[in-house]
Amino acid sequence: MNAYELIARKRDGLPLGEDEIRFLVAGHLRDEVKDYQMSAFLMATAIRGMTGPETVALTRAMMESGRVFDFRSPGGPVIDKHSTGGVGDKISLPLVPIAAECGLRVPMISGRSLGATGGTLDKLESIPGMRTDLEPARFENLVAELGACFGSQTADIVPADRRLYALRDATATVESIPLIVSSILSKKFAEGIRGVVIDVKCGSGAFTRTFREARELSSALEATGSVMEIPVKTIITTMDEPLGLAVGNALEVEEAIRILEGRGPADAVALTHRLVAEMLLLGGLVEDLGRGEVLARGAVESGHALERFVRIVSAQGGRLEMTRAGYGLPRAPVMRPLTAGSGGFVSRIDARAVGETVRALGGGRFRTDDSIDPRVGIILRKKCGDEVAAGEVLLEIHASRDEAAERAERSLIGAIDVSREPVERAPLVLTDD
Amino acid sequence: MNAYELIARKRDGLPLGEDEIRFLVAGHLRDEVKDYQMSAFLMATAIRGMTGPETVALTRAMMESGRVFDFRSPGGPVIDKHSTGGVGDKISLPLVPIAAECGLRVPMISGRSLGATGGTLDKLESIPGMRTDLEPARFENLVAELGACFGSQTADIVPADRRLYALRDATATVESIPLIVSSILSKKFAEGIRGVVIDVKCGSGAFTRTFREARELSSALEATGSVMEIPVKTIITTMDEPLGLAVGNALEVEEAIRILEGRGPADAVALTHRLVAEMLLLGGLVEDLGRGEVLARGAVESGHALERFVRIVSAQGGRLEMTRAGYGLPRAPVMRPLTAGSGGFVSRIDARAVGETVRALGGGRFRTDDSIDPRVGIILRKKCGDEVAAGEVLLEIHASRDEAAERAERSLIGAIDVSREPVERAPLVLTDD
Repeated sequence: MNAYELIARKRDGLPLGEDEIRFLVAGHLRDEVKDYQMSAFLMATAIRGMTGPETVALTRAMMESGRVFDFRSPGGPVIDKHSTGGVGDKISLPLVPIAAECGLRVPMISGRSLGATGGTLDKLESIPGMRTDLEPARFENLVAELGACFGSQTADIVPADRRLYALRDATATVESIPLIVSSILSKKFAEGIRGVVIDVKCGSGAFTRTFREARELSSALEATGSVMEIPVKTIITTMDEPLGLAVGNALEVEEAIRILEGRGPADAVALTHRLVAEMLLLGGLVEDLGRGEVLARGAVESGHALERFVRIVSAQGGRLEMTRAGYGLPRAPVMRPLTAGSGGFVSRIDARAVGETVRALGGGRFRTDDSIDPRVGIILRKKCGDEVAAGEVLLEIHASRDEAAERAERSLIGAIDVSREPVERAPLVLTDD
Repeated sequence: MNAYELIARKRDGLPLGEDEIRFLVAGHLRDEVKDYQMSAFLMATAIRGMTGPETVALTRAMMESGRVFDFRSPGGPVIDKHSTGGVGDKISLPLVPIAAECGLRVPMISGRSLGATGGTLDKLESIPGMRTDLEPARFENLVAELGACFGSQTADIVPADRRLYALRDATATVESIPLIVSSILSKKFAEGIRGVVIDVKCGSGAFTRTFREARELSSALEATGSVMEIPVKTIITTMDEPLGLAVGNALEVEEAIRILEGRGPADAVALTHRLVAEMLLLGGLVEDLGRGEVLARGAVESGHALERFVRIVSAQGGRLEMTRAGYGLPRAPVMRPLTAGSGGFVSRIDARAVGETVRALGGGRFRTDDSIDPRVGIILRKKCGDEVAAGEVLLEIHASRDEAAERAERSLIGAIDVSREPVERAPLVLTDD
């Protein structure tokens, strides 16, 4: 077996066997298959695609390239949630403690931002003192003690993905269904979970912009999970405007806490509860989604989910001041409101433009080694469908300096539309199958 | 402009502009575009292809990546010949002095072997003392003095091709028409020539195995030359059996000298004269091919072409002993004949199998840093169409050791067919347009 032949087969659109895919992935980690060979293979894959069995083989080879956790010890069902990434998507933060409170174990390992959408780790790390780089034993202990924790992908978890992702990111091979599926599932399955709910975002602010693309990704995720006997449940949700009101790291943590306090924005609250319900259903703890949502709401209303979030954060070194406005999170020195030029109904808030603006404010990365300003971001005061009067505030820009706020304001020109006619709100969940 | 975007465009099958292709080629040479990015681009190109203008832009960007010779000083037309590579193809060796004798200047720069077909440089270097790594000034002087010389691609001639070829060779992107065209023509055009005749080989022993593929490559070569205003004339010739009788470095030099002595094998002689005639026609020294062939035969019959070959070789340090059998070339210690099991007519001598056998004997390379044994090879005693009696010698294996000769014999099993019925010889030249 040699890399050249396997690359040539994929170039010609012919499928590879499981051993052949393992040879490439394992060989690449040992530098026997060179980066320039792997990137040629990735490009051939991005153009030619992969069969179902090939995608499974790639997912398995990547998963087995590093440590695989094992939570077969007694306890609640081990279920995780993943999102393909959207602007303002802070759902993991409230979801994890709610799901744990409802009886699940959630060993969540998250990533950092790169692109216009944020990363859960960056959001968490805006909490002073918060550490996500947990030793594996500590990670397992936290899940045992608190039912959940927030970990980061350490060097020994799916090292193949780190190598492949860095290549894909430089060679225009990110947008490939089999490569996306294997990247997501290898990392999730390495957590030792018994099932995962995946929120596939669809719209201008998401990786999959059309419903057809989102549907294709969903099917591939579920099919791969099915063959690997780890149930994967996807739901496709809208990502045309940002999710919730806050975009930016500390601002999103604040909103996450408000969701746990029972006073979050309607769309973010609804999605949190829906996803928890899907996890409970997948874990066999409820028989239908309705019962799952009742449990999720109960965990919030009792205050237990918030308490558990504070305990998890505290166990990971994070210092939240729950008695103070802003919870002791860092705040940007400059706040600049953007007002409506004319009255009417908000008909569009371009999620991608908002995400890019926050990234340019310093809330995201252009290069993997960029540092993040946790304070900056945008708070929407209106969402699509809301009525707005001329001169009323549409959103607030939180910036480190006046000039940055001005640049942000300019970059939002054309990103928000106000119509004379009332606008119907788009449904949040686009699939219900 | 950034590499990612350009790679993505090619991935999606969209054409790039001249500046964009130059950005990639020049950036790659400066390591600003990484090898793994370039190999992704090469794979996307191998699958998606290139338009005519893109192929021209790539050829030009590669050519201009290094030194471009200039032979506009007074003298005969500067015309070269190139072959896409066939087993036993030693035509360049007799062709260069014949063409020079007929009034052309031939600044030939050749490559080394990698694969089943040999390289002109390796053949020449089986002559004791022969040097092809000429300083540019020396190269120019030899062309001025002797009308021709045999150079190798030094570091400053088309450096982009060396970088790209090494990547293509490791990433299964060798077989791509635009990449082949730009690789061939950038190197030939850097010689400062006013035209080039290209022998496109077609058959089991060639890179292009079918006539359709050979035709496609020919058209792309001629079209690119036409746009760049350097005439390219292709002829498609058969490469199902080896060309001539000798395969292997020193053995092929011997045969080349025999062609210059007027006693070479019919097919190799005919092709040499035909290609010289094509060069003379392209250079405007004759008005039709027939007259060109007459001039070529005259140069051989007069003995002048052989004299010129010896002078060129000698000027490059090579020591031929023209008075001795074997011309003082190295000889393998073991010679093993392969005989026909039954009588009849030779109907197939698989060129690729013969080439691979010679490579395995040590006459070619498996890796670029392999060294070559100039002595080893195969001499055919019969060609397709020849009658053979049972027990008569079909070919001789020249090897360094008995075991190597035995292995070679085994590897030729099934490579030669003898039929009961007479077999018609295939035409040598497959196109005459």
